[in-house]
Amino acid sequence: MSRIYNFNAGPAVLPLEVLQTAQAELIDFQNTGMSILESSHRAKAYEAIHEEAIASLRELLGISDDYAVLLLQGGASTQFSMVPMNLLLPGETADYTNSGAWASKAIKEAQKVGAVNVAANCGKDIPTRVPSPAELKLTPGAKYLHVTSNETISGAQWKTFPEVACPLVADMSSDILSRPFDMSKFGLVYAGAQKNLGPSGLTVVIVRKDLAAQAPENLPTMMRYATHIEENSLYNTPPCFSIYILALVLRWVKKQGRDALYRQNAEKAARLYAAIDGSEGWYRGTAVKEFRSDMNVTFRLPTEELEASFVSQATKAGFNGLKGHRSVGGIRASIYNAFPPQGVADLVAFMADFKKANG
Amino acid sequence: MSRIYNFNAGPAVLPLEVLQTAQAELIDFQNTGMSILESSHRAKAYEAIHEEAIASLRELLGISDDYAVLLLQGGASTQFSMVPMNLLLPGETADYTNSGAWASKAIKEAQKVGAVNVAANCGKDIPTRVPSPAELKLTPGAKYLHVTSNETISGAQWKTFPEVACPLVADMSSDILSRPFDMSKFGLVYAGAQKNLGPSGLTVVIVRKDLAAQAPENLPTMMRYATHIEENSLYNTPPCFSIYILALVLRWVKKQGRDALYRQNAEKAARLYAAIDGSEGWYRGTAVKEFRSDMNVTFRLPTEELEASFVSQATKAGFNGLKGHRSVGGIRASIYNAFPPQGVADLVAFMADFKKANG
Repeated sequence: MSRIYNFNAGPAVLPLEVLQTAQAELIDFQNTGMSILESSHRAKAYEAIHEEAIASLRELLGISDDYAVLLLQGGASTQFSMVPMNLLLPGETADYTNSGAWASKAIKEAQKVGAVNVAANCGKDIPTRVPSPAELKLTPGAKYLHVTSNETISGAQWKTFPEVACPLVADMSSDILSRPFDMSKFGLVYAGAQKNLGPSGLTVVIVRKDLAAQAPENLPTMMRYATHIEENSLYNTPPCFSIYILALVLRWVKKQGRDALYRQNAEKAARLYAAIDGSEGWYRGTAVKEFRSDMNVTFRLPTEELEASFVSQATKAGFNGLKGHRSVGGIRASIYNAFPPQGVADLVAFMADFKKANG
Repeated sequence: MSRIYNFNAGPAVLPLEVLQTAQAELIDFQNTGMSILESSHRAKAYEAIHEEAIASLRELLGISDDYAVLLLQGGASTQFSMVPMNLLLPGETADYTNSGAWASKAIKEAQKVGAVNVAANCGKDIPTRVPSPAELKLTPGAKYLHVTSNETISGAQWKTFPEVACPLVADMSSDILSRPFDMSKFGLVYAGAQKNLGPSGLTVVIVRKDLAAQAPENLPTMMRYATHIEENSLYNTPPCFSIYILALVLRWVKKQGRDALYRQNAEKAARLYAAIDGSEGWYRGTAVKEFRSDMNVTFRLPTEELEASFVSQATKAGFNGLKGHRSVGGIRASIYNAFPPQGVADLVAFMADFKKANG
């Protein structure tokens, strides 16, 4: 078996030792005589995993008791609706920033629910970027300000979050647990697990309990955060296996050292951007420099033909998933927590060789 | 490793060979150089699994092209809301039957959405049962009639479905693919996967396309069946690993022979009920005989102390998960498709021994 470099944007690469542990205990989980896939969600062995995952998230992200940590289903796309259904009440306005494809979807769903002010819109700017704090047209007394902390498709990222009077709400699907942030500024953070946290089919939501408590009583039971807070995400059967993998990934993060991993992420991205910037314009980064994503490095080549050739030759050389999102084209290298630094070094070397042969 | 008999109600036992296949290819999926847990949902290798799962469901359940087969998240509990949000329009009434805990939850969520007529209510009857067709008080022109085909907690099951003018809608979470049924009588069938189909975190929905097309446009995008029909359940990232296990389970069903499996299910249940009925009243079935579930066999012992002792000794003897649901007590043996006949035979022997020692 030769393990390839997996640059996919999500689902994405997982730590090899997480996969090895999952494989070793897949048929008999901790001498229970059954697989974790077969375990009741009310069984002690599963409950320990459930509690471990939540406790590790609290520890690694610095989450206080003012917040609930929820393990839900449906992806960020479901959160686009759940956030305003629970937090945005009649008579209130929520500010949203439009930084690209994902922010735009969040806005569209919120507009079905309540009053939305688009505080800044640079969603279609080329080069791609997120808004600068100065251009935000905020609503006085807004319930919250929604940001997409990292735009997975365009490769633009909020490097610092805006200082505002209201709580921030963030879709952190593609950069949660990749760098420090101050949870106390946020009313709610949500993230699909399939980039930095684990496999698909699991959504992590961190919500301030006092905000969740304001939700209308008549929401569908499954769409109310309060339901899941009261039942510790065990109101109905949770996605147990995905939560198990999350727990293993968080063990791995602690073993690496969270802060060391954060530094490594910055270094991996810097190395790749240096290769782009050092190519005398042959490789061109697609995001404004000050908003370049450390998770999704996006760039173009001189022609679309060269891009197709680049992807094709890279795939043969063992670099998988470098084709840009179908909506924007170009190249995208997603380098989440579990992506190894050696893979970045090897890609940089491949890029130099490719330019030499085709430049 | 000694594999125990897993009588849990869900998540539940999976076929051993499914687990063995998943284990063997967990790190390198079909020579892709990555785990299926890491595969992009747009990758060819995953797409083949996705298509296989849907095609196998169509084949095994006899689903025509008039229906879409959807692979969603959120469990039956989310479907309790999605069904009326999509199907029950202003001015229309839906008939619901109350046969116990799960039907009751479906009714509660539907009442938040639209006009609901409870056509029969035997949800709190002891012994437990489902309604008989004669007692249904149907609404002329009802949009649909909702049934919970098997009440997992009480162990009561619709043995034949009522003949009505409107389409049936069924929660088949705990008995889908366990016995024949005529899909053409149904407008929609939904099922959490974690009993007969696979692991938790996946919900199968089979819906008549013309009914789904009537849904209001302004629903949350993720709550609209039409969204998932148009995108073949790839509107957002699906729960890929759970779908992979579903595909493997369906391969196993085809290898066993669907009809042979159906016969085996009836035989397993008959053997267990015969042991109960042959105990001269020492073991007492909790459901009305004509509505006894073939999936969840529920019974009581002369005292709660004996029940606790039964569960405790059974657990030591390698029979796991026999304690009845916390809301009703007693004993529950869940014997889904993947539960081996030998486990039923061994439980029957254990029951005889236990009665001899304590009777």
